[in-house]
Amino acid sequence: MDTIRKNLDALFYPKAVAVIGASDKVGKVGHTVVANMISAGYKGQLIPVNPKAAEIQGLKVVHEIADLPRDLDLAVITVPRPAVMPSLKALADIGVHSVIVITAGFKEMDKEGYNLEKEMAELCNERGIALVGPNCLGMINTGSDVNASFAAGYPIKGNIAFFSQSGALCTAILDWALGENIGFSKFISLGNKAVISEAHMLEYLGRDEETKVVLGYIENVTQGQEFLKQAEIVSREKPVIMVKAGTTAAGAKAASSHTGAIAGSDAAYSAAFKKTGVIRVTDVASLFEFAQAFSTQPLPAGPNLAIVTNAGGSGIMAADATEKSKLTMARISNETVEKLRAVLPPFAALYNPIDVGGDAPATRYKDAMEILAADPMIHALMIMVSPTASAQIIETAEAIIEVAKKTDKPIFACYMGKMRVAPGQRMLQEAGIPCYAFPESSIHSLEAMYLYSNWRQKGVPDYPVMPGNKAKVRALFDEVRAAGATEVVEFQAQKVLSAYNLPTPRTALAQSSDEAVAAAESIGYPVVLKIASPQISHKSDVGGVKVNLQDADTVRKMFTDITNRAQRLRPDAHITGCLVQEMAPKGVKEIIIGFKRDDQFGPLIMFGLGGIYVEVLKDIAFWLAPLSREDATGIIREIKSYLLLKGVRGEAPVNFEALEHILLSMSQLAVDFPEIVEADFNPVLVNSEKAIVADVRLTLAS
Amino acid sequence: MDTIRKNLDALFYPKAVAVIGASDKVGKVGHTVVANMISAGYKGQLIPVNPKAAEIQGLKVVHEIADLPRDLDLAVITVPRPAVMPSLKALADIGVHSVIVITAGFKEMDKEGYNLEKEMAELCNERGIALVGPNCLGMINTGSDVNASFAAGYPIKGNIAFFSQSGALCTAILDWALGENIGFSKFISLGNKAVISEAHMLEYLGRDEETKVVLGYIENVTQGQEFLKQAEIVSREKPVIMVKAGTTAAGAKAASSHTGAIAGSDAAYSAAFKKTGVIRVTDVASLFEFAQAFSTQPLPAGPNLAIVTNAGGSGIMAADATEKSKLTMARISNETVEKLRAVLPPFAALYNPIDVGGDAPATRYKDAMEILAADPMIHALMIMVSPTASAQIIETAEAIIEVAKKTDKPIFACYMGKMRVAPGQRMLQEAGIPCYAFPESSIHSLEAMYLYSNWRQKGVPDYPVMPGNKAKVRALFDEVRAAGATEVVEFQAQKVLSAYNLPTPRTALAQSSDEAVAAAESIGYPVVLKIASPQISHKSDVGGVKVNLQDADTVRKMFTDITNRAQRLRPDAHITGCLVQEMAPKGVKEIIIGFKRDDQFGPLIMFGLGGIYVEVLKDIAFWLAPLSREDATGIIREIKSYLLLKGVRGEAPVNFEALEHILLSMSQLAVDFPEIVEADFNPVLVNSEKAIVADVRLTLAS
Repeated sequence: MDTIRKNLDALFYPKAVAVIGASDKVGKVGHTVVANMISAGYKGQLIPVNPKAAEIQGLKVVHEIADLPRDLDLAVITVPRPAVMPSLKALADIGVHSVIVITAGFKEMDKEGYNLEKEMAELCNERGIALVGPNCLGMINTGSDVNASFAAGYPIKGNIAFFSQSGALCTAILDWALGENIGFSKFISLGNKAVISEAHMLEYLGRDEETKVVLGYIENVTQGQEFLKQAEIVSREKPVIMVKAGTTAAGAKAASSHTGAIAGSDAAYSAAFKKTGVIRVTDVASLFEFAQAFSTQPLPAGPNLAIVTNAGGSGIMAADATEKSKLTMARISNETVEKLRAVLPPFAALYNPIDVGGDAPATRYKDAMEILAADPMIHALMIMVSPTASAQIIETAEAIIEVAKKTDKPIFACYMGKMRVAPGQRMLQEAGIPCYAFPESSIHSLEAMYLYSNWRQKGVPDYPVMPGNKAKVRALFDEVRAAGATEVVEFQAQKVLSAYNLPTPRTALAQSSDEAVAAAESIGYPVVLKIASPQISHKSDVGGVKVNLQDADTVRKMFTDITNRAQRLRPDAHITGCLVQEMAPKGVKEIIIGFKRDDQFGPLIMFGLGGIYVEVLKDIAFWLAPLSREDATGIIREIKSYLLLKGVRGEAPVNFEALEHILLSMSQLAVDFPEIVEADFNPVLVNSEKAIVADVRLTLAS
Repeated sequence: MDTIRKNLDALFYPKAVAVIGASDKVGKVGHTVVANMISAGYKGQLIPVNPKAAEIQGLKVVHEIADLPRDLDLAVITVPRPAVMPSLKALADIGVHSVIVITAGFKEMDKEGYNLEKEMAELCNERGIALVGPNCLGMINTGSDVNASFAAGYPIKGNIAFFSQSGALCTAILDWALGENIGFSKFISLGNKAVISEAHMLEYLGRDEETKVVLGYIENVTQGQEFLKQAEIVSREKPVIMVKAGTTAAGAKAASSHTGAIAGSDAAYSAAFKKTGVIRVTDVASLFEFAQAFSTQPLPAGPNLAIVTNAGGSGIMAADATEKSKLTMARISNETVEKLRAVLPPFAALYNPIDVGGDAPATRYKDAMEILAADPMIHALMIMVSPTASAQIIETAEAIIEVAKKTDKPIFACYMGKMRVAPGQRMLQEAGIPCYAFPESSIHSLEAMYLYSNWRQKGVPDYPVMPGNKAKVRALFDEVRAAGATEVVEFQAQKVLSAYNLPTPRTALAQSSDEAVAAAESIGYPVVLKIASPQISHKSDVGGVKVNLQDADTVRKMFTDITNRAQRLRPDAHITGCLVQEMAPKGVKEIIIGFKRDDQFGPLIMFGLGGIYVEVLKDIAFWLAPLSREDATGIIREIKSYLLLKGVRGEAPVNFEALEHILLSMSQLAVDFPEIVEADFNPVLVNSEKAIVADVRLTLAS
């Protein structure tokens, strides 16, 4: 594994590149790759490999892989499927460092392809070969003049890296970026990800000095834990922006039919991105809008945006879009208003959006911008220009560029239109100031920058280790398994919870009515009685639950009632007696807390208000374990019905600390015991004083 | 008013146009307007008016307005503010039919401007002059070669009409449309809307045969009822697509500072658009994307979309976007799958999205499209092309155009990219097939077409007249007002409700304990007792409410208790006795129904579940009165918590008919009595059997 990672340097900065299946026939992939390498201006040794030809595109041909130089940095395989494994083996024998397999027809095709791909991966993992693909477009590195792909274009040099699971999408994005003049540092088509995955790419691109922003298109993640680790490390250094496709049932179905990859639960992906600071977008246009903003502008120090416009209508639309985002329309201080008043005409609007008037020359824009940029309560500027009769398209762009140079605040431009405004748009884009025809794109980008900046400022989370008696839980689980079961319920589950200091209702097993009364006296009235029998799981069906029992006489009578009725209705059952349980506290709210172990990302914790809030309104927050204290606080505040927990109509708020304690302890349990595949604390009862886990079900891996 | 409407013909198709303030000085508005008229190729009589010049831009000048021909069709006023009213008066004297006032500095500027504008409007309304503006860019009609504006460009001819409240935004949109090659029939800058409003425009453009799609940008509506009427009439003929800016608090603040118009409540605007079939968008880009789709493609007969792609990744993203919309990914029938199998290669995906393979030539696309277009369960097609090495950009576009010609289903194209795909994008756009670089735009447009088609199919709503005793309610309101009050509460309010057959709890006034028992016997136990005194409005404060009284003895005792305590605590109050009231039904849910009279659009009805659903979760539906039966059904189903009313966990559903009856009767009351400014039925109690209005408050205009 470590060798593979080291060999990524050889992949991206190869001293020599061999093209296996090189060809002179235009239209063949083996021709295109050689031609692309040449036209990219590759300065290393380029070696076409072909059993027959003597020369290909002016280069001397090597006939056998065995004749290639030892310790070759990169080989690009373009031969048909049956020849791929033999080629790879021959390459392994000469100690190749990295390989790109462009050839398709593996996992995505049939069983035989699946097996071949597995064999390929095993060989590479054994020998430490960094293999990209199979079934991919190839790789481009503008930093080393390498175009080891059969793409139709070569991007301009830039500081944005992009990797993609879909090869055809690569062609589209490359074409689009060429038209938009967007530059790339590295461009990687990952294909089937037999060896090199998105986690490797994150790690490598995170360290890559030529890359300022990392973009990715993924349909699934294959190394979940490694992905989480690398994504978080990189996000602390530079923004990672991703499209995760296959988010809906239909999309996921399409995803699994086309690459053979089963898309994971979208909630788990969202939680993974949230945890690691990855910025998620849903479409390719946003991917690049965000990339341009992040790669050119500083992060804002806060949410306050000031808008300068020469057209009221566009100012209003921008204000609407700002309010709908997590940004705020900056309140302009009195001091700043007075400064603006001194330089703007009487009909100008001095409050945000600042309307400098339809007749505003560039100098008026400049005066306003300088005053606003100097106001410490303003964190970002958006400058809007409509092509009015007197608008100075170019001069205003020059003014924006000049002001941007002198401030450390992000500045966005919005030149409304397409024809007359084009020279201004171009000038700004070239000067590294994002400029679009409509304000929404800039506002969404700035919002993402603000949220990302918040995430970074929180720093590395501290995961508290919650105390728990692991040995005791281990023994309980062994017991359950010994009995051939996978469900941990009732008394056993309560013991697991107690071992992790999770509060459960005080409960005692009473085998006689006298014992029941004694237990009730010790617990304190009112109490609940529940039939206790290993054979009776649906207690209510046999009338086996009685609540709110207020005194000894009632407890005594009910014990007899319950046990008699149960024995009559279920003559097969062994009746152990009754559980005597503490009643739920008053003014209580029902919470559901639980987790489900995601195949890729581990325990996915869920939190919501019980009953209709979770079931009907789907008001649920998801978070990946482990939880920091801040996460536990955050998860509770993420649901809409959080306001109910805070208390409405003069109610006291619930005991949030008690809920947070339950979340943290459950997270610890989830981390300590990978065999728990699902946990359901339902309901957790909470009022202003305390929280208890009233019922619990744990499911162990079978 | 009728003359004004008739004079819109003179405005748009003038036989003669005078420019008041015409000039030879480049840069002056009076110069630009004349130049624009000439370069648009206007074929009527163009008359510059200027007191001094003899000739302007080669045209003979008229020195005095009085010397203009009588019954002049259109005058464009560009003179400074002080000269506007005198010019308008002189124009009125020669019987001008329509006027555009470009000059700014009226309502939006100061008090004097406000008064001048009022004067202007009064004169025009009196003389029937169709006045556009003041404070506007002017008007363009490509159908009559008129460019009576100072805009910097002249659009190509098309079938889209656009009107806008913001002039500067007009310049931006014109510039953008020129760049995007979007054609217009008419283009109107409404300015301050002193006379001609959006309602006039809707009416006129609805009838205009040169217009297929009506677009509008508004910040507020000035003639609400007329707007509702015209919007609905037009929407039945052709799509009306609008941006309403100033939707958020910040946006509305910006709106009111820049045009002096106070933006109405956004909920009322949303309800107005919903009622009249107007398609609302939030940004200008969507406005034009929708316009292109609606103006070129037939409406879909249903929601089922089939996607054809040569790239798996883009297919997945399109499937995701489809699932998030109100559209559905079409299920491909077995028969169609078999037909596809016969023409597509073995590695193709035959289920939606249909992946024809990265190597697909145009013929393969064509085969698949024809098969899908013939499937009656598929209502629309989206064809996606990524620029893979073997993609046939042009040939595939030709195939799409050919298939589109032979089907009556909407077809959208998505050519992913920008450089290599450009010729294909252009060819498709020119052939009237919407084509974008990313799938989301097409899917949003198609969704809007589907929803619009649904609205149209519902037909003209039938507003039931609900029976009500108007005279009785009138008398009750007179009584309230005579007492100097505006709040109608308790017994009086109950009488109002009864007069409109709105169910209230059975209630009787008892003046003695005997009467209370008699009333309780007649209503049936259990009952509620409430203190009755005109001086005591907060009954609970004096312990004046007792619920769930089960028998005669308790009623008798409580009557004495309540009245005694009230008299002791409030010696000033005249105690009439007690109200004896039916208890709320069991298994009941609390609903809030009410309305608030919107200044522009009339009674805005709201509906939601009581308590936290409305207050905390803001789960409220809004609808404008009057309600059709279908509206009443729809409003209940619009809230998320509707599922609770349907019954969860085996509960019976509530009596929906009873709720609908309350909505319809309240709507009738709102329509019949414009003096009710607010009504609050809170709570309405409903279970599976019945619904009653347990408490009600009506507020009359003061």
